[in-house]
Amino acid sequence: MEVEQVLRMNGGIGEASYANNSLVQQKVISLTRPIREEAITSLYYKKIPRTVSIADLGCSSGPNTFFVVTEIIKAIENLCRELNQNSPEYNVFMNDLPGNDFNNIFRSLDSFKQNLMISNNNNNKFEKNSCGPCFLFGAPGSFYGRLFANTSIHFVHASYSLQWLSKVPEGIENNKGNIYMSSTSPLNVLNAYYEQFRRDFSFFLKCRGEEVVEGGVMVLTFLGRRSDDPSSKECCYIWELMAAALNQMVLEGIIKEEQMDAFNIPQYTPSPSEVKLEVQSEGSFTINRLEVSEVNWNAYENNWNAMDSESEEFESLIDGGYNVAQCMRAVAEPLLVSHFGEDIIENVFSRYQTLLTDSMSKEKTKFFNVTVSLTRNA
Amino acid sequence: MEVEQVLRMNGGIGEASYANNSLVQQKVISLTRPIREEAITSLYYKKIPRTVSIADLGCSSGPNTFFVVTEIIKAIENLCRELNQNSPEYNVFMNDLPGNDFNNIFRSLDSFKQNLMISNNNNNKFEKNSCGPCFLFGAPGSFYGRLFANTSIHFVHASYSLQWLSKVPEGIENNKGNIYMSSTSPLNVLNAYYEQFRRDFSFFLKCRGEEVVEGGVMVLTFLGRRSDDPSSKECCYIWELMAAALNQMVLEGIIKEEQMDAFNIPQYTPSPSEVKLEVQSEGSFTINRLEVSEVNWNAYENNWNAMDSESEEFESLIDGGYNVAQCMRAVAEPLLVSHFGEDIIENVFSRYQTLLTDSMSKEKTKFFNVTVSLTRNA
Repeated sequence: MEVEQVLRMNGGIGEASYANNSLVQQKVISLTRPIREEAITSLYYKKIPRTVSIADLGCSSGPNTFFVVTEIIKAIENLCRELNQNSPEYNVFMNDLPGNDFNNIFRSLDSFKQNLMISNNNNNKFEKNSCGPCFLFGAPGSFYGRLFANTSIHFVHASYSLQWLSKVPEGIENNKGNIYMSSTSPLNVLNAYYEQFRRDFSFFLKCRGEEVVEGGVMVLTFLGRRSDDPSSKECCYIWELMAAALNQMVLEGIIKEEQMDAFNIPQYTPSPSEVKLEVQSEGSFTINRLEVSEVNWNAYENNWNAMDSESEEFESLIDGGYNVAQCMRAVAEPLLVSHFGEDIIENVFSRYQTLLTDSMSKEKTKFFNVTVSLTRNA
Repeated sequence: MEVEQVLRMNGGIGEASYANNSLVQQKVISLTRPIREEAITSLYYKKIPRTVSIADLGCSSGPNTFFVVTEIIKAIENLCRELNQNSPEYNVFMNDLPGNDFNNIFRSLDSFKQNLMISNNNNNKFEKNSCGPCFLFGAPGSFYGRLFANTSIHFVHASYSLQWLSKVPEGIENNKGNIYMSSTSPLNVLNAYYEQFRRDFSFFLKCRGEEVVEGGVMVLTFLGRRSDDPSSKECCYIWELMAAALNQMVLEGIIKEEQMDAFNIPQYTPSPSEVKLEVQSEGSFTINRLEVSEVNWNAYENNWNAMDSESEEFESLIDGGYNVAQCMRAVAEPLLVSHFGEDIIENVFSRYQTLLTDSMSKEKTKFFNVTVSLTRNA
């Protein structure tokens, strides 16, 4: 079965899955905020559009679904006030695979619109603000394909969705004992993963190139890596631990070896230079900014200062292994169930949690985010 | 509770509810087809747009959800071939209240797109056709409010949704023993219903006037009436029978009289001249065509000739009372449950079915459809 079919059945994998721990998600959003704000300012000064069409690709349907879109609109409203311009109209397109829970998104429509009207001023008091009319749409479909009409979008946002490939690369049957790229993967496996990333991301850029207006911008955040080595621990270790859990179960006869060998994760965690190369060779967009940021696997380490160390929230976050296992479960469970069946799931994640807890007690481990800000060429 | 809140919780009431009997729905769609085709042809000849944006208002989420949109796109594709023009791109906006089951619509996205590529030629053989790229969006919200950006829509379709008012009219506490307009309703009740219709439909026209491009068209089908009398049996009798069922239950002490008196259906079934008057006084649109058509309550009478009288389908449709009760249940149940609670529902519809069967055995009863085709003024 193609990956998209699995994800489609299971509601897609979006921002909320890797970042379903709201502390991690808040951290990623806050780390990438300056890049978004710069992109919005540049777009607005260049175009002062009467209608601003915003697309959130891989929006998922968690509690934070509207967070970034709300922030983008408020930033534009602030620019309007600074420049003494009328508010534009907003078209907001929430995209994910057709199996995503769009009903859940739409049920929050009223509170999304109410939030747009509230601003938090300097004294931390909430004030009622004006905001241009906002029209919200669900846009079901794969972003590895066209989603919108020609030259109809001004701002594209995608966070933690573009590391997903359209399918598992072909010709990686010899990636034995692994489920992703790893230091023990044969060279052809690393190449196949990279080539699939190139094809997918290049086609993504071509599609968006047709959809985004001249001077329009995209801010894309990949789960990625800093290193040039695609099998770097930075991006692969989290899956190596899951492979270790599965390999234990192969040894114990719970999973068949052939089944394990045939399972690979359809993901690619690119380096900044790989992202840059693809943007340059595809040619529709120019890079304004390309940055790497880091978030701890262990969510509470990102927010230590902000929390009362005797609070319940603090206590519940101490078990980093549990938190990361839960977070990865949201991501990996549909893929594992589709390949191995329902029965092994509890067993896999219980072993995985033990391995994670053990590893995290020994070293501080991080996710690496590659964020790129792009402008559509003339 | 406002009606929209009830409908929102319960997934809205759209075309599929009144017309969830697919025979009735097919009949309505086929009766109004020539009007749609004329409107599409006039739009296309005037504009030959590169992107055609189509809005289906109150689309619901039944098996026939995409039926009319598919037909509209195929009609445009035929015009393109006749005029030797390239296919345009299509934006298709499926609108209903936020509680509608949009997930169900989006799950049919693939088959919708596949159907667009198939045409049924004269020999009843299916051929593969070309079709311009089609982008589908869910547009949650009330059509008694803005849904789309200024001058962004070319074709609006609404079938069996606009007879729903935004709320129950105020000041109709004296409509005792009735749940809708009826021959026994006091004059102030009839006036209050009419005034609510005028306010709602006029605001609908104003909103669409801002959204529809100059020369763009709307084809709207109301459940309505032919008569000038708003309490005519043509439109009120179906609710009078439901009121009779509820009144039986009041007499038997199952429902409290005050509860019954406080229940009224938020609907208005306009006459052609009432529709005409509102369009003319609002002023954004010009009427191209205004027609009344009829569909039998009893679905099989609409399709008698097409069916084998010994078939199972025929047998199951013979019980017209059952069919109409089911059809009306989809419409009325959310409103009844919200007002009277869950417990009385089976009892109400069992009595209603008996009354319907009895009535239908004595006379042939019909729904009346008012269809209006409008062009956005310059």
